[in-house]
Amino acid sequence: MPTATLLLSCSDATGIVAAVAAFVSDHGGNIIHADQHTDAEEAWFVQRVEWQLEGFDLGREEIAETFRPIAERFEMDWRLHFSDESRRIALMVSQQGHCLFDLLARWRLGELPASIAVVISNHEDLRLIAENFDVPYHYIPVLPEDREQAEQDALEVLTDYDIDVVVLARYMQILTPGFVAANPDRIINIHHSFLPAFAGARPYHQAHVRGVKVIGATAHFVTAELDGGPIIEQDVTHVSHRDSVSDLVRKGRDLEKVVLARAVRFYLENRIVIYRNKTVIFD
Amino acid sequence: MPTATLLLSCSDATGIVAAVAAFVSDHGGNIIHADQHTDAEEAWFVQRVEWQLEGFDLGREEIAETFRPIAERFEMDWRLHFSDESRRIALMVSQQGHCLFDLLARWRLGELPASIAVVISNHEDLRLIAENFDVPYHYIPVLPEDREQAEQDALEVLTDYDIDVVVLARYMQILTPGFVAANPDRIINIHHSFLPAFAGARPYHQAHVRGVKVIGATAHFVTAELDGGPIIEQDVTHVSHRDSVSDLVRKGRDLEKVVLARAVRFYLENRIVIYRNKTVIFD
Amino acid sequence: MPTATLLLSCSDATGIVAAVAAFVSDHGGNIIHADQHTDAEEAWFVQRVEWQLEGFDLGREEIAETFRPIAERFEMDWRLHFSDESRRIALMVSQQGHCLFDLLARWRLGELPASIAVVISNHEDLRLIAENFDVPYHYIPVLPEDREQAEQDALEVLTDYDIDVVVLARYMQILTPGFVAANPDRIINIHHSFLPAFAGARPYHQAHVRGVKVIGATAHFVTAELDGGPIIEQDVTHVSHRDSVSDLVRKGRDLEKVVLARAVRFYLENRIVIYRNKTVIFD
Amino acid sequence: MPTATLLLSCSDATGIVAAVAAFVSDHGGNIIHADQHTDAEEAWFVQRVEWQLEGFDLGREEIAETFRPIAERFEMDWRLHFSDESRRIALMVSQQGHCLFDLLARWRLGELPASIAVVISNHEDLRLIAENFDVPYHYIPVLPEDREQAEQDALEVLTDYDIDVVVLARYMQILTPGFVAANPDRIINIHHSFLPAFAGARPYHQAHVRGVKVIGATAHFVTAELDGGPIIEQDVTHVSHRDSVSDLVRKGRDLEKVVLARAVRFYLENRIVIYRNKTVIFD
Repeated sequence: MPTATLLLSCSDATGIVAAVAAFVSDHGGNIIHADQHTDAEEAWFVQRVEWQLEGFDLGREEIAETFRPIAERFEMDWRLHFSDESRRIALMVSQQGHCLFDLLARWRLGELPASIAVVISNHEDLRLIAENFDVPYHYIPVLPEDREQAEQDALEVLTDYDIDVVVLARYMQILTPGFVAANPDRIINIHHSFLPAFAGARPYHQAHVRGVKVIGATAHFVTAELDGGPIIEQDVTHVSHRDSVSDLVRKGRDLEKVVLARAVRFYLENRIVIYRNKTVIFD
Repeated sequence: MPTATLLLSCSDATGIVAAVAAFVSDHGGNIIHADQHTDAEEAWFVQRVEWQLEGFDLGREEIAETFRPIAERFEMDWRLHFSDESRRIALMVSQQGHCLFDLLARWRLGELPASIAVVISNHEDLRLIAENFDVPYHYIPVLPEDREQAEQDALEVLTDYDIDVVVLARYMQILTPGFVAANPDRIINIHHSFLPAFAGARPYHQAHVRGVKVIGATAHFVTAELDGGPIIEQDVTHVSHRDSVSDLVRKGRDLEKVVLARAVRFYLENRIVIYRNKTVIFD
Repeated sequence: MPTATLLLSCSDATGIVAAVAAFVSDHGGNIIHADQHTDAEEAWFVQRVEWQLEGFDLGREEIAETFRPIAERFEMDWRLHFSDESRRIALMVSQQGHCLFDLLARWRLGELPASIAVVISNHEDLRLIAENFDVPYHYIPVLPEDREQAEQDALEVLTDYDIDVVVLARYMQILTPGFVAANPDRIINIHHSFLPAFAGARPYHQAHVRGVKVIGATAHFVTAELDGGPIIEQDVTHVSHRDSVSDLVRKGRDLEKVVLARAVRFYLENRIVIYRNKTVIFD
Repeated sequence: MPTATLLLSCSDATGIVAAVAAFVSDHGGNIIHADQHTDAEEAWFVQRVEWQLEGFDLGREEIAETFRPIAERFEMDWRLHFSDESRRIALMVSQQGHCLFDLLARWRLGELPASIAVVISNHEDLRLIAENFDVPYHYIPVLPEDREQAEQDALEVLTDYDIDVVVLARYMQILTPGFVAANPDRIINIHHSFLPAFAGARPYHQAHVRGVKVIGATAHFVTAELDGGPIIEQDVTHVSHRDSVSDLVRKGRDLEKVVLARAVRFYLENRIVIYRNKTVIFD
């Protein structure tokens, strides 16, 4: 059964929860999930409310208009989503296939409420995997002297395929600020360390040299600052002196797959609100 | 600054959230924590709301009376707590001191919003530890043929010290249904396994024989069914063939301390609602 | 570079390590991994030694014969493996595809030192997945009144494909003692709970009813006792009241995939020794 | 029963394991724990061997001399310990008492194979805790303009109490290179982050600002580089947007206690070998 989800944030004030609850309740909405968060230090309020459309006495097109006065009263940032509006995903990859395979398999098994519409890569290595899943594969090589052209081509692919969210599934190129600015809050990257440790290149090598006893993976939104965007999800695993760099890489692959898939699911289920370069995850 | 906390549960219905939010909002309450849970399968609604008393236009003694009509409308089970009403704890122990030490140290360091009023034990071993913290120590031996008398004595101690919650901090005697019934939902036990695995005696030995690769600890409310009460908190740690039974015991001690302390904190901060022999933990 | 691996176990005695080390050392072997375990309680010794074949002055066919006197002196159970002898795997599945997909993808990406030779299923659902990876798919329905015939057919497939190890990747039928006896210590199953909790059917439902705060997955060898064989690997994840049964199932899938894949890797890399219905994992 | 433990490391070469095993075996030693590690990249070999003194045909004073030729042949760094030689610990603390309390309680409960001989602090706050455990407490204030004098006083205390290992149990002063150089490989610190993330001051605040989803604690040897010494142990816990800085501090305390206690135990049980600014932990 389809649902509507409101994601909102605003300066904290008395009466927000009551106003939102009354809005849903007065129109006969059956709330199936509600969660909220008050950041006392920043005096910032964030809420997620999801209710069933069946029995709700406003039509889909009326909901936003009817809610708008409440949003304006509290000066909210807000978004409205319907659960049956499927998102379209572009995956960007380089030469490592584990995250690509994992997301394609989840999609094929019906675990992702979205469509994987296209794969973009700066290498040809993974073409067969994508095509086996009947997903178009666009090879866009990135030459150091012509990075802008490559990104221009990628942006065209995103437009052609009507993409809602870009997932960097081990894409080993740094995106330019222009590309990032053209896709605000809709590029998700998996970094193979527990950020902020080991930002930048070759984090498993860095981890091995430092002799850490845990390694991690971090899914985050991409912003202009390299590896500095809002963190969506992190997880770690224990390692020891017995683990060589290649063991770290192997253990890390399993972390990367799971952490990235969780982050994508949070996004697709409209569970993420960003503020102050941080995320609230309503899980 | 003192706060009031409402914990409530009832059959799910439209309008509960709006009614509770309006109650707090209409009297000028500043909500600092609100969380709720709907069990769709059981059609059961559970909520926790905490707001600052400062600025609230009802006196403490008026709050319950003013809220009662809302509670009756939705046939709620509900409780009201004030954050500055300190609970009084009785610790029951046998011969192992690690949980006792840990809770006493947390209390001394100001981490527990409560008083540890008395320690009861069926052994003399740990008397010095309690007395070093200036906590009275009552030695009540439990003879197999006179279990009832021992429990009668313990109940008198609970009454004498005006106890709100009993924490079994590795108390190795099984309580009778009578004792449990006299203390509903206010006895917390730490069991040294990830229940329901290895209920009963000597769980680390059972775990070693079975060759498990994780061990755990479980804090739960005590009910008439042995090791069968509502689970409050669990945690686990990895083990391997290299761990002997005594290694499991050692690793388990650290789990037990942390898991029990978390459960006690949840209780003292009024974060637990019980239904259907399960807990909702508003963390 | 190919290596030889000795796995051995025997009653503990003075001089075993020295004898084995001297055997490898005297023939010029360069040890790249050596680990051992002494179970003090059982007075049982277990060892794994892996050395490079390059530079070793015994030919492959001579190694076992030359080592045999040492093995006989200490009455060892022992096995010798060469790292370039690829194992042949049969996957048995029912209707859930996540473990199947995961193992096939790992194999395709070169992460498994083995061949996935055949998929056997009591359903047709997953045929397309297997065939997309060019792996033959044998549909062997299991009728309650003719379980023996189905297992007879499955045994024939195992013989036809020259199978070394059978991986039950969410195969939802209980194997008969006869089938198990025909494949000693070479059937690996993934059970979707932290055994021994929630053995048998529908463990996630059992976990939800019990209200546990952690769920797990267990990879184990299959023996005649249901869910009672030697545990190879376990892992867990935290859950809360917010997780419905379907959330547990979803979280559990990621556990199952990772835990099963680790167990299969331990097997293929000759890291497992079984004794007293437990495993030693030389990781 | 007392044991002898050899910790050794050297350039990897053929025959080391055989030589060491023969040394123990030829003198009738019953090995109860043996583990080794070869760092293939660095071609470095590390080993730990522990055997029972009972039945060994060399007296304690003869063991080192008899082993020396083997050590010299392979140019080993090596140390010999006897399990019944109790180490003497100095704890250095500032104003937070949780790690102090935890280590004192473990010692009192017989969990630490060592003596806590003295507590040194730059504050008076924790004096009562130490004295309740009958441990002398030396107050050595650290004035910015006279740091050298304070450290000189501390060094004298270490000498007076015949200290083997210094544990910084939340000591919030940075030690000078001179103090560190005077205590090589025998100062253990607990840092309240998963290093190398959030080195330096106020790591929980840094973590909160960055919006991480895991926090951690790191026990490490102190070297001249701040928070840059060899890591002994790390652990992490999950956090979310619901956790304020004070929640991170609270969750962190439990991590710090457990991680520091594990590191101290590894040290006392002679399980640590340092090389290339990393540790091998023979657990």
